[in-house]
Amino acid sequence: MKNFTNSLAKRIKVARGIEKADLVIKNCQIVNVYSHTIEKGDIALCDGKIAGIGEYSGIQEIDAKNAYAIPGLIESHIHIESSFLTPEEFSRLLVPYGTTTAICDPHEITNVCGENGLNYMVKAASKAALDMKFMLPSCVPATPFETSGAELSSEEIYTSIYKPSVHGLAEFMNFVGVVNCDDECLSKLQYTVDAEKIIDGHAPGLMGKDRQAYISTGVLTDHECSTVEELNESIRNGMYVEMRNGSACHDLENLLSGVNEQNARRCLLCSDDRQPVTVFEIGDLNNHLKLCVEHGIDPITAVQMASLNAAECYRLYDRGALTAGKRADIVLVSDLKEFKAEKVFIEGELVAENGKYLPQVQKVSYSSVSGSVHVNNFSAERLKLNLKSDEVKTIRIEKGSIVTKKGHAKIELTNDGDLKFNPANNIAKIAVVERHHNTGNIGLGLLENYGIKRGAVAITIAHDSHNIICVGTTNEEMEIAVQELIKMGGGIVLVKDSQVLETMALPVAGLMSDNNAEWVKDKLLKINSLAVSELGVNSEIEPVSTLCFMSLPVIPELKLTDKGLFDVNKFEFTSIED
Amino acid sequence: MKNFTNSLAKRIKVARGIEKADLVIKNCQIVNVYSHTIEKGDIALCDGKIAGIGEYSGIQEIDAKNAYAIPGLIESHIHIESSFLTPEEFSRLLVPYGTTTAICDPHEITNVCGENGLNYMVKAASKAALDMKFMLPSCVPATPFETSGAELSSEEIYTSIYKPSVHGLAEFMNFVGVVNCDDECLSKLQYTVDAEKIIDGHAPGLMGKDRQAYISTGVLTDHECSTVEELNESIRNGMYVEMRNGSACHDLENLLSGVNEQNARRCLLCSDDRQPVTVFEIGDLNNHLKLCVEHGIDPITAVQMASLNAAECYRLYDRGALTAGKRADIVLVSDLKEFKAEKVFIEGELVAENGKYLPQVQKVSYSSVSGSVHVNNFSAERLKLNLKSDEVKTIRIEKGSIVTKKGHAKIELTNDGDLKFNPANNIAKIAVVERHHNTGNIGLGLLENYGIKRGAVAITIAHDSHNIICVGTTNEEMEIAVQELIKMGGGIVLVKDSQVLETMALPVAGLMSDNNAEWVKDKLLKINSLAVSELGVNSEIEPVSTLCFMSLPVIPELKLTDKGLFDVNKFEFTSIED
Repeated sequence: MKNFTNSLAKRIKVARGIEKADLVIKNCQIVNVYSHTIEKGDIALCDGKIAGIGEYSGIQEIDAKNAYAIPGLIESHIHIESSFLTPEEFSRLLVPYGTTTAICDPHEITNVCGENGLNYMVKAASKAALDMKFMLPSCVPATPFETSGAELSSEEIYTSIYKPSVHGLAEFMNFVGVVNCDDECLSKLQYTVDAEKIIDGHAPGLMGKDRQAYISTGVLTDHECSTVEELNESIRNGMYVEMRNGSACHDLENLLSGVNEQNARRCLLCSDDRQPVTVFEIGDLNNHLKLCVEHGIDPITAVQMASLNAAECYRLYDRGALTAGKRADIVLVSDLKEFKAEKVFIEGELVAENGKYLPQVQKVSYSSVSGSVHVNNFSAERLKLNLKSDEVKTIRIEKGSIVTKKGHAKIELTNDGDLKFNPANNIAKIAVVERHHNTGNIGLGLLENYGIKRGAVAITIAHDSHNIICVGTTNEEMEIAVQELIKMGGGIVLVKDSQVLETMALPVAGLMSDNNAEWVKDKLLKINSLAVSELGVNSEIEPVSTLCFMSLPVIPELKLTDKGLFDVNKFEFTSIED
Repeated sequence: MKNFTNSLAKRIKVARGIEKADLVIKNCQIVNVYSHTIEKGDIALCDGKIAGIGEYSGIQEIDAKNAYAIPGLIESHIHIESSFLTPEEFSRLLVPYGTTTAICDPHEITNVCGENGLNYMVKAASKAALDMKFMLPSCVPATPFETSGAELSSEEIYTSIYKPSVHGLAEFMNFVGVVNCDDECLSKLQYTVDAEKIIDGHAPGLMGKDRQAYISTGVLTDHECSTVEELNESIRNGMYVEMRNGSACHDLENLLSGVNEQNARRCLLCSDDRQPVTVFEIGDLNNHLKLCVEHGIDPITAVQMASLNAAECYRLYDRGALTAGKRADIVLVSDLKEFKAEKVFIEGELVAENGKYLPQVQKVSYSSVSGSVHVNNFSAERLKLNLKSDEVKTIRIEKGSIVTKKGHAKIELTNDGDLKFNPANNIAKIAVVERHHNTGNIGLGLLENYGIKRGAVAITIAHDSHNIICVGTTNEEMEIAVQELIKMGGGIVLVKDSQVLETMALPVAGLMSDNNAEWVKDKLLKINSLAVSELGVNSEIEPVSTLCFMSLPVIPELKLTDKGLFDVNKFEFTSIED
């Protein structure tokens, strides 16, 4: 027997019942996503794979006590960075809820650190139980209107897309560029098609012939569908629809009314982003499944969306079902309503039990992506406005939305044309400070409705280029906040009465903490509540996450980048003066 | 615009309606296998692909007059050789019925010519409209009990499985070897798994844990299911079931009662083998679809089996549906009952219309696989039996079956112990003459129920090693028949009154004709009827195809190879004497 066929021979003998399995999970109700049935039996495991389903005995045996066995859940689209956790901690956070595979888009860290960022994520993920597959970010920078830490041109895509560690091309956000035949866009797509890899989509609101044009290039998925109309349009044109229920966006429940037994095979489940607080409150994909069933989807059909369908879409032939030869990624759930995970197995190992992650978390060094804040000779001086008129445009925050309105206001000016802060009119100064290449770029603007009445808030999470966003009531306190961020190497800072009130360090690319999920959850809650109670930030908005999007120049109407104030509707820079 | 993105840009512009399509098929009822719906509209084609579905105008336009547009049909498992046609003619035969892709197993020619045979098939197929994908034969020779023209050991599999022209590993017939952990078998399977290619299965009657053991090695499909029980067993264990309706085997209708909307996505359609006479009588996969609908399968679900499901199974991501970006393999059918193909398009070209194949048939040279009959110094002498007893075993043909019974008879002997032929007892001499390597091997036996009363019949089609099978009433006429075959380089010969009565030349490896399908159909009909009318062969059996299987030592009970008489039940050679 040749060495390399030994394991195959062992699996065969275990499957036939001639040899004992490494582990047998006894007395399961096995959800079969192929036959769409539920079978009672044991699951025999061998070398991390399933050897057989039926009646088996093993060297080790675990009694499932009639629990349902479902395939390990597959998260079809997520940005790890949005959890503020490193991949090792992200695995610890999600696996106890039954997620065993995640298709990840390291868009944020790649915007800061380029392929170093991707490489770090891959390395960190390799130490975790959760199997994280990484897509290659397709739109770095996201727009030409801001300074990102790195750029991935079509040439870099060409050299990287063939790497085994790269599963495909991540969400192609620049659908406008695609339908307008931008050569860089088409090159990135064509290179990926030539490499026979998957292309994820992102095309909110793109309908009709334009959507077909986008899909005709080979784009396979979309996680931005928010209406049944978009869902139907995507499915009938051959896309897989990744129905989203994340910490920020909640489309799943809207979409479910469009799902039926005929089109369900083209439906997947995703979170896009998921913060620890959400997971601790409602769980992960198990909650997606719960919602599906609550909305009348057959439980087995729901499980298919999070297993077989996702495996087919992402060509993960070794998983997605509980049958002989497949990876032993198995979740034992008490029922098919709540989908509460009792036990989670990944490649045959019991990795979570009753909500507890069992493996020792092994962390890799993040030195290659730390120290990502590069800002010299910053001073309050640089924050001064020099306005010619007191009639100004404001970036007006709308409650519960990352879409801002273009506000118009009359403000009080100092003699030298700077903003004279007045809590009454609810307008504060906002600055975006370039933090990657020491360009000295600083964009200045006026933020309405953030509500801050004293001190300053500064963060290094600023979609999509992740420069520094700072809001404050005095230039001096804004400087203190920014200087603290520089010292910390990235994170979140609150300043009050010219003193640092609270900080949350995000040393990993200025995006992720090196602490665990519990710490991140508590710290964020504290910072958000302090921002409201101590600095007077509008209690109707989420102080940190709202701020993160004020620099995203693809979301209407008015945004601020390190290059200046940007009118998204006109797609051009504009002046503060109205 | 870079050159390689030009075509992508053109497709986008056509999809958006900015540029005219190369061709628009107007007024279709498009069967959408993703949404499981039927949509009215036009199909816009561009560079062989679909650019969009909707309302379009093109440089050329064809009015479908409200016909149904379905995706090009995918034959999931077939042996081209069994049609007696070369790939170029095979394409001409099938395409007019809507078949646009075929997954082919060149098992027969590879047994004769080794990889030369495969290479010839690939080359010949490259000139045809039908897109033929070739699997690498996994069991050459099929058994160690006969002499084949070539051998494909695991080492050859290793070197060839990575070739782009090899789509995967062909039906793994030796399931006994697999479940018994034969190292050669496991090596072939493991090499294919490592190459991330598909493995086709073949496991009639293999059930329970043994079937799981077989599947656990990575075998993905089975076309040998003949009962609903086997179908369910295969599906629940993760196989794709290729429901067969061929010229020889008819399982489809039995199986359909086991198909439902939940498990249909794991069902495909196949023929396994299809002779011209069958195609001219009832068509091809369009007839499979007709049968599905007659048995209550939803027409769109039926179409999915022959398109999307097959494309997913064989990882043909560029086809299987009619949506933007997919290959323009389109069939216009008048209804969803008969599925009569009005027009067939392959890669955007109209290749068949009202049953007529439109392209010029371009044939490639078959010199590399001709002259495959190598038998020197053959003489009637070599056919003499030298029996010690007149109590003998006979290979008894059972009507309508390739399973033979072990007969027992008392025969008349000549002085030197040879058979004294007597039409009354319905027993003739049968010989299998090794024809590949000039070994001089000749196996002799007695065939009961073939019914031949005068002359001889000889063929070079002899599953699976394709030596010469000859049946006759006198040694001299058997020699004449075999000598004629040698002269012809393979085929079929009838001899009567010591004269060659009729021949059918199969110069391509002794398996395929270089004539067209009409010629093959007529010639075979004539030969079969002459065998009955002139030689007195049993009119209840098919003279040629029955004979082809008399040397297949895996089908019970008694068979004859070039190495001698083989008792399949005992799995050992035996003597003619009882």
